[in-house]
Amino acid sequence: MGTERPIGTRRILGVDPGLNTTGYGVIDIVGGAVKLVEAGVVRSTASLTLAERVAELHEGISDVITSLRPEAMAIEQLYSHYERPRTAILMGHARGVLCLAAAQNGLSVHHYAATRIKKILTGSGRATKTQMQWAICRQLGLATAPEPADVADALAGALTHYFLSRPGSLYSA
Amino acid sequence: MGTERPIGTRRILGVDPGLNTTGYGVIDIVGGAVKLVEAGVVRSTASLTLAERVAELHEGISDVITSLRPEAMAIEQLYSHYERPRTAILMGHARGVLCLAAAQNGLSVHHYAATRIKKILTGSGRATKTQMQWAICRQLGLATAPEPADVADALAGALTHYFLSRPGSLYSA
Repeated sequence: MGTERPIGTRRILGVDPGLNTTGYGVIDIVGGAVKLVEAGVVRSTASLTLAERVAELHEGISDVITSLRPEAMAIEQLYSHYERPRTAILMGHARGVLCLAAAQNGLSVHHYAATRIKKILTGSGRATKTQMQWAICRQLGLATAPEPADVADALAGALTHYFLSRPGSLYSA
Repeated sequence: MGTERPIGTRRILGVDPGLNTTGYGVIDIVGGAVKLVEAGVVRSTASLTLAERVAELHEGISDVITSLRPEAMAIEQLYSHYERPRTAILMGHARGVLCLAAAQNGLSVHHYAATRIKKILTGSGRATKTQMQWAICRQLGLATAPEPADVADALAGALTHYFLSRPGSLYSA
């Protein structure tokens, strides 16, 4: 999909970091309307070394950023208790190179707690996956939920940033 | 310190990743002798955003790599149980951008368990900090231990890679 957009459009990138699969979603805000621009995943090759894999993720998301030119990146905030610490640390590697790509390209980076994203999109911080998918579909006018889940999570982050940062928002970013 | 070195020299970079302070140490292997080339720290600015901080670390270590041109990078292996998970995930961010810098500059990256590094340098996988400092000083002909600890840990990794990868090593890398 192209990068053309009306003047005054705000473009937001949401990412859901993972070493194997990083989901991303780009939305445009034109006037009061929100529109899906592009969404997908950046994968790393499992047979490569860790260093080569983070390089794949960095290159992949840098490509998305330089071709679509979003102005802001939304990402889920870290929390303290992960069920699988080693997976969480590997996610940290992915998160590090995604934040780096954003900084290198002048994007502002916004961190939102998972419970806050759920509350903003559904009204409940404990919303189910189905409720979240429904909210994303409704907001973006999609007939079916984005797959895989990493893409839906990335779009949820981007939508949260839109709701929290729009002028006159009742929430504070 | 300069980058000139005799033909046949192997140059190894060791790093000890941390979001606040990343230690690094570069050693040369000339014939059978090992020599300290440069060691220090790359710090990130605490008042900046996470994205800006990982960018500082990436730029700092990339500067070290492009000016000194090591061929390999040694780094402590991840383990599963960290006392402070959040700190460990932030360390993962730093580790991600360090591995990225290595991959972008064609360095091979080698991961060594902390206990293995201790055993290789001192004969005991449970060596104390003092024993490790003594071993590093002895190997590199230093009068005093490198400070801060991040620098000593970085050099310990580099020395471990040297011992495990030299031709005829009794250990296997």
